[in-house]
Amino acid sequence: MSFFGRLRGRERELDSWLCVGLDPMRERLPRGLPAGIAGLREFLTAIIEATNGLALAYKANLAYYLREGPEGLQLLVELAQVLAPGLPLVLDAKFGDVRHTAQVYAAFAFETLGFSAVTVCPYVGAEAVEPFLLHADRGVFVLGRTSNPRSGLFQDHAELWLRVLDEARGWNAKGNVGVVIGATHPQELARARERAPELPFLIPGVGAQGGELAAAAQYGPTADGTPPLVNVGRSILYASADAGFAAAAQQAAARYRDELRRARDASPRGNFL
Amino acid sequence: MSFFGRLRGRERELDSWLCVGLDPMRERLPRGLPAGIAGLREFLTAIIEATNGLALAYKANLAYYLREGPEGLQLLVELAQVLAPGLPLVLDAKFGDVRHTAQVYAAFAFETLGFSAVTVCPYVGAEAVEPFLLHADRGVFVLGRTSNPRSGLFQDHAELWLRVLDEARGWNAKGNVGVVIGATHPQELARARERAPELPFLIPGVGAQGGELAAAAQYGPTADGTPPLVNVGRSILYASADAGFAAAAQQAAARYRDELRRARDASPRGNFL
Repeated sequence: MSFFGRLRGRERELDSWLCVGLDPMRERLPRGLPAGIAGLREFLTAIIEATNGLALAYKANLAYYLREGPEGLQLLVELAQVLAPGLPLVLDAKFGDVRHTAQVYAAFAFETLGFSAVTVCPYVGAEAVEPFLLHADRGVFVLGRTSNPRSGLFQDHAELWLRVLDEARGWNAKGNVGVVIGATHPQELARARERAPELPFLIPGVGAQGGELAAAAQYGPTADGTPPLVNVGRSILYASADAGFAAAAQQAAARYRDELRRARDASPRGNFL
Repeated sequence: MSFFGRLRGRERELDSWLCVGLDPMRERLPRGLPAGIAGLREFLTAIIEATNGLALAYKANLAYYLREGPEGLQLLVELAQVLAPGLPLVLDAKFGDVRHTAQVYAAFAFETLGFSAVTVCPYVGAEAVEPFLLHADRGVFVLGRTSNPRSGLFQDHAELWLRVLDEARGWNAKGNVGVVIGATHPQELARARERAPELPFLIPGVGAQGGELAAAAQYGPTADGTPPLVNVGRSILYASADAGFAAAAQQAAARYRDELRRARDASPRGNFL
């Protein structure tokens, strides 16, 4: 089963486009949790239990785990194998290295960790992406338009990011390629959908980063109805700094899921899906 | 003391431009070493002891350590703090993420690990690089022209990589910015040096990847004489698969150091430095 096939199945079950970002920071842990890595583990366990029925997928950014050193990497292993087994899990690491090294990163993401999908950065070229594509049952999201305010610095250089989308379409022979398109640039979602009608989107920047849901809903799905992953990170993870953090995260996740449903049902494109 | 100031001092001491790549792979370990992570540790320890007087710096690619899981990350911590303390160490991770996450990656590289320099990928934009620049005593090598055969796919898109060099010059207020320019494209070394006379180069792709030394020698140094880091990885690390691997690595390192000296002394530019 392909990654995007699994996503479509899970969407039918949960009716959700929400991707919950799992980027734990020691200094933002709610009060009352144990110190150190045990606190992070307990935090993530509670967040996943609370949001599991609401989230189409989860996304973990490698940086936040590496910052915790070897214990943090152990927690990332456990995330895939103990805390969230069988759930669609995107490793957001923006890997982009020469072929030999990209092969090693692919082995790390899909074998050492056991994640279902990754993000990759196209700057190095096709050699940086191809080793990931060989894994037909995993998803590969290529950075197109990122969610930072000045993403255009190089991405707008002679419309580089649209060129990246063109290449990404060519990399999709196994149907395992998607693209990252930030929600912080709503007009770019429309351009991206027009340019790459069949590529699934991973849409960061909703919530704490202030992205808009309407454009995500209108342009998010592919022509054949593969749902977007609309990632919300800190607004759910840190919905409360108190003992009730898991319930608060659940409420926040349900609110985003519902807002996405409403936006989809209200959107011209969503209606015919 | 800045990273590049340290490099200049160490070059005066060792008269070497050689950067030794430390990318250990379990399946390529020489015969006779212990199994598992202990073998990798013993291997790296011996390589560093054998090459320490020949290498201007070392470069470790994050991928090969992550592939070994939490124990591999522990080995990377030890590399900076036990195996090679005080030596110039570049973490080759090609980090490139939005500002908040880039801050976390910088803390990982410079605090969790204690490395002296990193490589960063410019695709996301200035926000991906700026958090690293705040660390005035560390080096930040921005990907310009990478060493893979088809690096031009996006890097040549309307001369994107030269635009990246222009921006990198602007990021260099603290004198801690360099650029990665692959030796596999000798003519690009000349263009890069012309475009960014003052930016130090990290030059991968020599040795196993087949890059040329002559162009690295001619265009490697900056206008004010900061030496390039000419990285040689597998040709030194895996110079022998037998018990004599450390001596073989030492001989290979000395050969590259000497070839670089000769190329420098023979080069039109090298003569006036």
